[in-house]
Amino acid sequence: MSSPSQADDGDRIGDLRHKLRQFAAERDWDQFHTPKNLAIALSVEAGELLEHFQWLTPEQAAHLSADQLRPLRLEMADVLLYLVRLADQLDVDLVQAALDKLDINAKKYPVGLAKGNAKKYTEL
Amino acid sequence: MSSPSQADDGDRIGDLRHKLRQFAAERDWDQFHTPKNLAIALSVEAGELLEHFQWLTPEQAAHLSADQLRPLRLEMADVLLYLVRLADQLDVDLVQAALDKLDINAKKYPVGLAKGNAKKYTEL
Amino acid sequence: MSSPSQADDGDRIGDLRHKLRQFAAERDWDQFHTPKNLAIALSVEAGELLEHFQWLTPEQAAHLSADQLRPLRLEMADVLLYLVRLADQLDVDLVQAALDKLDINAKKYPVGLAKGNAKKYTEL
Amino acid sequence: MSSPSQADDGDRIGDLRHKLRQFAAERDWDQFHTPKNLAIALSVEAGELLEHFQWLTPEQAAHLSADQLRPLRLEMADVLLYLVRLADQLDVDLVQAALDKLDINAKKYPVGLAKGNAKKYTEL
Repeated sequence: MSSPSQADDGDRIGDLRHKLRQFAAERDWDQFHTPKNLAIALSVEAGELLEHFQWLTPEQAAHLSADQLRPLRLEMADVLLYLVRLADQLDVDLVQAALDKLDINAKKYPVGLAKGNAKKYTEL
Repeated sequence: MSSPSQADDGDRIGDLRHKLRQFAAERDWDQFHTPKNLAIALSVEAGELLEHFQWLTPEQAAHLSADQLRPLRLEMADVLLYLVRLADQLDVDLVQAALDKLDINAKKYPVGLAKGNAKKYTEL
Repeated sequence: MSSPSQADDGDRIGDLRHKLRQFAAERDWDQFHTPKNLAIALSVEAGELLEHFQWLTPEQAAHLSADQLRPLRLEMADVLLYLVRLADQLDVDLVQAALDKLDINAKKYPVGLAKGNAKKYTEL
Repeated sequence: MSSPSQADDGDRIGDLRHKLRQFAAERDWDQFHTPKNLAIALSVEAGELLEHFQWLTPEQAAHLSADQLRPLRLEMADVLLYLVRLADQLDVDLVQAALDKLDINAKKYPVGLAKGNAKKYTEL
């Protein structure tokens, strides 16, 4: 269990970023962790996560057992780890980017138009 | 769905999770945000992020201009938004999962064996 | 790169391969069409194809209108084009590889064990 | 080694399509092979193919050993198998779609504008 450091002001993502930096530095992996390679790794991990769902019906996917959830949880972890690592390499504040994108989405998908339908904003 | 715990205080990911819940509820989008659909959306967004790198040399990808970085930052945001939403639907603490996975990786890739090489742990 | 064999006569994939070679050569695109970049492009296109399905119910996805099918068909085309191009760069006979893989799958998934279930062969 | 049947007029993809139909029918797998699930499986396999390249330099990826190529060839096979199966379910002639898309691309990327650069057609 990690405790947030002072430096991170309670930011658990910041904590993760520092641990990942150290992990890579100890293994001399910065040479592999280029932005392009990290974007590939992120996409590969997202595919591995998706693989768990590929033959499930929506109903089965909505009622996963603890045994089914365990590996899924670790695939989600992998996606986050590579995303945080990529954000670090590109000097992006991930959570701030997500908040900004949520604002953009709120304008693209106004409640009145988007309610109850899944159309892309270009088709609303 | 998980209810916010005390531990979420000051947690920016927890904050994002709550905003996303509200965003979906206002638009009646919970019907679309099934775990299976969210896993698909996550993978699709990871692909859109990767698209920005597809024809770049490693050198070009390591020296992105502000104009190149802007859309990339928002694609990274999309990945995080869907990941947080999926974690919420599956009641997974994303950052804790990542910390657990990092511990697992530290055992799979001991510094002595992994230093300076990118082989999979099964081949070390 | 492979040179066309006698066996390609009347092979529509072989025809496609030659057209793609010419297309790239005319545009001086061989410099971009490295195996790594083509594998990225293939994955990106597979994501674009998948995007069309992301919010559809299984029922909706099984009854696509002509308007829905038209863009899907072209995304499938993109996947094939990059796959054929990658196979050409790696000197792989794509259809023969698929036939070989089908033989492997027949052994991994014997009818008696696999009938009516979607478990991975490692769990049969 | 498969020999093209009369019915397929020498079309090796058509031959593959028929073998896949039979494979699924024998295992009662049509229930899983919905268009949505097949599009997921295709994307997952494209990710598995990409995984082989993720930490390679462009130079390493351009000079694969026979040992490296063997699993790659089977991943490419998996992509083709799911693509052919999806095309069959959607009643799409895959090779014709690819030829049509190549014509579209030739107009989007005229030799004079596209020569030697990898910009998207919207930026040419």
